[in-house]
Amino acid sequence: MIFAACDLGGTNTRAALIDETGRILSRVSQSTLQSSADALIDSVIRLITAIATEDCPGLAALDGIAVAVAGTVDSISGTVVTSPNLPFADTPLRDRLSAAFGRPVIIENDALAAALGEARFGAGRGAGDVVMLAIGTGIGGGIVVDGRPYRGTAGGAGEIGHMVIDPAGPLCACGRHGCLEAMAAGPAIAARARAAVKKTTDTAILEIAGEDIAAITAETVGRAAAAGDPLAQGILEAVAEIIGVGAANIANLLNPAVIILGGGVMTGDKIILETARRVVRDTALAPNRDASIVAAALGGDAGLLGAASLCLK
Amino acid sequence: MIFAACDLGGTNTRAALIDETGRILSRVSQSTLQSSADALIDSVIRLITAIATEDCPGLAALDGIAVAVAGTVDSISGTVVTSPNLPFADTPLRDRLSAAFGRPVIIENDALAAALGEARFGAGRGAGDVVMLAIGTGIGGGIVVDGRPYRGTAGGAGEIGHMVIDPAGPLCACGRHGCLEAMAAGPAIAARARAAVKKTTDTAILEIAGEDIAAITAETVGRAAAAGDPLAQGILEAVAEIIGVGAANIANLLNPAVIILGGGVMTGDKIILETARRVVRDTALAPNRDASIVAAALGGDAGLLGAASLCLK
Repeated sequence: MIFAACDLGGTNTRAALIDETGRILSRVSQSTLQSSADALIDSVIRLITAIATEDCPGLAALDGIAVAVAGTVDSISGTVVTSPNLPFADTPLRDRLSAAFGRPVIIENDALAAALGEARFGAGRGAGDVVMLAIGTGIGGGIVVDGRPYRGTAGGAGEIGHMVIDPAGPLCACGRHGCLEAMAAGPAIAARARAAVKKTTDTAILEIAGEDIAAITAETVGRAAAAGDPLAQGILEAVAEIIGVGAANIANLLNPAVIILGGGVMTGDKIILETARRVVRDTALAPNRDASIVAAALGGDAGLLGAASLCLK
Repeated sequence: MIFAACDLGGTNTRAALIDETGRILSRVSQSTLQSSADALIDSVIRLITAIATEDCPGLAALDGIAVAVAGTVDSISGTVVTSPNLPFADTPLRDRLSAAFGRPVIIENDALAAALGEARFGAGRGAGDVVMLAIGTGIGGGIVVDGRPYRGTAGGAGEIGHMVIDPAGPLCACGRHGCLEAMAAGPAIAARARAAVKKTTDTAILEIAGEDIAAITAETVGRAAAAGDPLAQGILEAVAEIIGVGAANIANLLNPAVIILGGGVMTGDKIILETARRVVRDTALAPNRDASIVAAALGGDAGLLGAASLCLK
């Protein structure tokens, strides 16, 4: 079998042909068009059509078409209800694409699709109950229950980044204080580093950032930590303790077999993974503390693979 | 159809005959025997046998037998893995009861059974995704997904009381700081009141407690609040804000249609319910903020009814 999947993110729109084992046969991408819903939908149609006609006998040969979208998806109506980073609002994306292709189309939230991809083909393979945290500019989440995507009543489930874990914490973009996202995503790591380098010069962070405090990002901190810089390692450990609190909360609430940590912040260092693993093991209740805390395995392909897998059932 | 259900709690063991519509036909109860697992199992067998022979044509006439247990239940093996308040540890309760009755028996965690009872027959009737918080001496929880009990990988899901919402908060019995239970269950309400009455005498709390600070409980505060005492009302509002943070976290994670607040602390006053409702509406993300926040409707019968309903499918 062969499926076409598209991952519609705030920055890039990517499409791929994928077989039933989760192998990516070919791929294409472009910058996401932000001018209008119509322009964006047309670009998705063009990308999928292109990949299906160039690398496959055509659209009619596809066994399914699925699109992962960075927004809240109502799976009953096939509508993108809201999206912080795409020009969609109550947009009937599924029916628009179905009409264009003359075929059924599945749409899904991108974080949930990524969790499903990891659960079926990646770091959660073989486990039924899997939760994924994608830690980058924000903290996204996806919940997989018994191998199936858990959407909640209106497609809003999985907002793990907006779990308050300290009501006195920093203001979050959502308006609350002390959300996990406000305390432990990339910008929080960068903010800690910027504050720290003002107090000491004994760190590689500033050098890596080209001596420009404003240029410090979470990636800067990650590189400095990987190079053995104690200040950077301390910052990541402190943030990882907070991620660990969030992961332990998830373990106590949902008792998943596997909690997957992914996203740009997780790339290239073990400190966050190991610290979060220790916090869950030491602080969650039995048997919830037995959750495996693992790194994502599929990188940026998780959403494409998870979306494609929705065509399988 | 007619089912026998038993609710095995740390204080009381209750049994009932229940029909398929959730009507309780007869009931019996006794204090829970704590001397040994064997003595406790024997008491469950006696209670169910008694109710089935006195009020029904006998055990053979039952369409199902189900037991809700205050402990972690492994539903695959039918074992009570651990229990903080019962003499069970890796106890094969299901098979022991099955052997005694010569019939299949279902066992389930009591908080999950209560959530299921409320979801099927009570405050969550008609909704698919329902979460219940039982706020009493501790804070228990149960998660119902698409009308079915959500147990997690090893029966440990639903520990909503052990979601940390303030790492600098008071020490919880589980060893972490700032769990929802440590901040908002009955003992936390009582502790706030005891501290407050040391600073002011302008309150009905102390009078209701017989002028004995040590005798102040959450119930004392509830009665004072119901009588219009501003100090008591303020304490309940402050605690309800915390419960609201927990409920908003649940809404963002699971997007349930209904969040049910039950347990002894909820009895008899609207302050907690109304405050929690406002916090969820004002702070959770769309569409998660649309969750209905409602009071439990079945009181102490929820666990019996939920257990009985497990015999239905």
